[in-house]
Amino acid sequence: MNRQVAHNDVAATMQAIGVRARAAAPALALASSDAKNRALVAMADAVDAGAGAILSANALDMEAGRAAQLSAAALDRLKLDAARIAAIGEGIRAVAALPDPVGQVIAAWDRPNGLRIERVRTPLGVIGVIFESRPNVTADAGVLCLKAGNPVILRGGSDSRHSSRAIHACLAKGLAQAGLPADAIQIVPTADRIAVGEMLKGLDGNLDVIVPRGGRGLVERVQREARVPVFAHLEGICHVYVDASADLAMAKRIVVNSKMRRTGVCGAAETLLIDRAGADRLARPLLSALADSGCAIRASEDLRAMFPASEPASEADWKTEYLAPIISAKLVDGVDGAIEHIERWSSHHTEAIVAQDAAAVARFFLHIDSAILLHNASTQFADGGEFGMGAEIGIATGRMHARGPVGVEQLTSFKYLVRGDGQTRP
Amino acid sequence: MNRQVAHNDVAATMQAIGVRARAAAPALALASSDAKNRALVAMADAVDAGAGAILSANALDMEAGRAAQLSAAALDRLKLDAARIAAIGEGIRAVAALPDPVGQVIAAWDRPNGLRIERVRTPLGVIGVIFESRPNVTADAGVLCLKAGNPVILRGGSDSRHSSRAIHACLAKGLAQAGLPADAIQIVPTADRIAVGEMLKGLDGNLDVIVPRGGRGLVERVQREARVPVFAHLEGICHVYVDASADLAMAKRIVVNSKMRRTGVCGAAETLLIDRAGADRLARPLLSALADSGCAIRASEDLRAMFPASEPASEADWKTEYLAPIISAKLVDGVDGAIEHIERWSSHHTEAIVAQDAAAVARFFLHIDSAILLHNASTQFADGGEFGMGAEIGIATGRMHARGPVGVEQLTSFKYLVRGDGQTRP
Repeated sequence: MNRQVAHNDVAATMQAIGVRARAAAPALALASSDAKNRALVAMADAVDAGAGAILSANALDMEAGRAAQLSAAALDRLKLDAARIAAIGEGIRAVAALPDPVGQVIAAWDRPNGLRIERVRTPLGVIGVIFESRPNVTADAGVLCLKAGNPVILRGGSDSRHSSRAIHACLAKGLAQAGLPADAIQIVPTADRIAVGEMLKGLDGNLDVIVPRGGRGLVERVQREARVPVFAHLEGICHVYVDASADLAMAKRIVVNSKMRRTGVCGAAETLLIDRAGADRLARPLLSALADSGCAIRASEDLRAMFPASEPASEADWKTEYLAPIISAKLVDGVDGAIEHIERWSSHHTEAIVAQDAAAVARFFLHIDSAILLHNASTQFADGGEFGMGAEIGIATGRMHARGPVGVEQLTSFKYLVRGDGQTRP
Repeated sequence: MNRQVAHNDVAATMQAIGVRARAAAPALALASSDAKNRALVAMADAVDAGAGAILSANALDMEAGRAAQLSAAALDRLKLDAARIAAIGEGIRAVAALPDPVGQVIAAWDRPNGLRIERVRTPLGVIGVIFESRPNVTADAGVLCLKAGNPVILRGGSDSRHSSRAIHACLAKGLAQAGLPADAIQIVPTADRIAVGEMLKGLDGNLDVIVPRGGRGLVERVQREARVPVFAHLEGICHVYVDASADLAMAKRIVVNSKMRRTGVCGAAETLLIDRAGADRLARPLLSALADSGCAIRASEDLRAMFPASEPASEADWKTEYLAPIISAKLVDGVDGAIEHIERWSSHHTEAIVAQDAAAVARFFLHIDSAILLHNASTQFADGGEFGMGAEIGIATGRMHARGPVGVEQLTSFKYLVRGDGQTRP
């Protein structure tokens, strides 16, 4: 088969997937909360009951991954075990327990002419999720989209294809048991990269939004090439600013937790900013606490003078997402210095201030335009589950439609329902 | 000057406008409600005081328009008079009177770990407005964007350039009097169409959303070519469905008002659907009322048999936005027939049902996915002012971010503010 024929085949497959997703939309939009929740519970049961099959599929992926000499980190992302499979089932049940967003009245008001206006949530449309090695994204994305009444097209990485298909088979069982359309959750059957290109072009208008889940390379390509809206963050260059007014013990806990709880997540802190006015009291204990927890420190010159067990920071450090036990650190002139540094270097994902001074906090909250700002709490709370959204399909740093954790509500649109008793417009 | 040099000049001018707009964003985002409202009132005063200058500028545009043999409709859109200028000033004062959306807490909740989470409105970003002949859009768009804290780049049609500049001069006075950045409201100084192309490309990331205001040709081009999000509707193929349960007198008022109050607006009805079960009682009086009000009728065959004073409708009529005293009409099988027709042919802008049967209304509201659905009220209420939003920059039929009338709230984004007392994530 020559290259062009293969290309046309994949393109045709993808167009057909788009058409089927769009066709499934009305039934899904009208599906009762009860039907959706029955499907979700049946999916969770199928995942629990199918753990053996999922593990066998995952063993194939792991074997291929080792043969392809994937990194240890990639293999860890790929790996499933009994606990991780149990967590997938629990995650699905948590989504079943969430309130149904579809049909919720977001706002309602009356007009002087007697018209009653309601703004009511509706599904958003067909969602495309393009992900890499984590097979659990199959379930996370599939069930969140279902809860919000949206058909979803899942395109996983080739590394995890056996695992993803085994999980998808469980989701399909749940849809069938509840009488919901099989095309509500489709998985792209080919590892061909042309499939991604077709999704980025929007499948002839049958794809409404794309959510990329994976490394910087993937997200960059999607943001650059997609002709449909994208919910994503390219990176999480998150900051913790410790004000001169901070409680030292609290600051130590928050700084160490923000950086070291898990260094590979997008909400992990990458830069520590310390108020110059409090440096004598704060700098050494904070940096010592980080070093004691196993974190390497790259510090500005003035800070290195106070803590010699650090490397010099270069400008590149202020824009680096380490995703590793490394932190950049700098002295700044109070909250205004922190704001200046953050507005220049941040990826507008998540920033925290540790302070007792309410005026400093108010300034930080007002002047910084990031998706999530925290006062006296760890940046690692940047997570849909921690926000009480039940689950998330990702975290967005754009300002359009969704920002911060993307949960079921962010996967909806709305329409206006207006009730009158014969009103005409003068 | 050769063509390429001219192109590069316009492109450079547009890039500079984008850079200046982005640079104005922080000051505007932080501007107090008081400062913004002072600017708005000063703008309205400047429009009132400058009515003579605006009329003189408009006379130049009208003269050029007549020389260019613009249509009567185009000349009417272009024309300003004392009443229309007074309405511009009143519109600006109405926006001043609106609550400031920036900083509003949209949602707030507490987590079991004691974290307090707030979702707070922020400005959306730099807005580009591309419009055609109506010079009042200069003021409408400029002041709505200002109220929501967004810099705006206005690109009006060449037909209205003198009028738009005269109005813009009034807005500039208001900004200056309140000490707000002049670059908050910029007007593109060239009529070159290359300027539009540059805006559609997004001005190097300095333009966040585009709102096209004008005819189908403009909106189609913007939707097709824009690399940034677009708030728009391509057309308003709005339907009125009259159920067998309808009150006839009410139905007559609503049908005639929906079609004939103003035929050139996007919320004007284009198709009348009559329940076959009520046709004997409803069809003739409804069509007579329309005919009596000066409306031409293009009807399905079965309906023509009941009202011979009509032309035959072809399939093309179901997808035509007449924007004229013409209506297409059809018998349908109850609310389900209406839903089927509307979901097939509608532009998902605005649809109305006239009915006394609550079950029919509920079905209509549930099954139709248009931005605005009305019960026993005219489709001509599809308007931000009528919705109580004070004013609108347009009506959107997309499902992303803004849908329906786009007012100041729809021109905002949000961020999360999280308050803790030392929480770290386990």
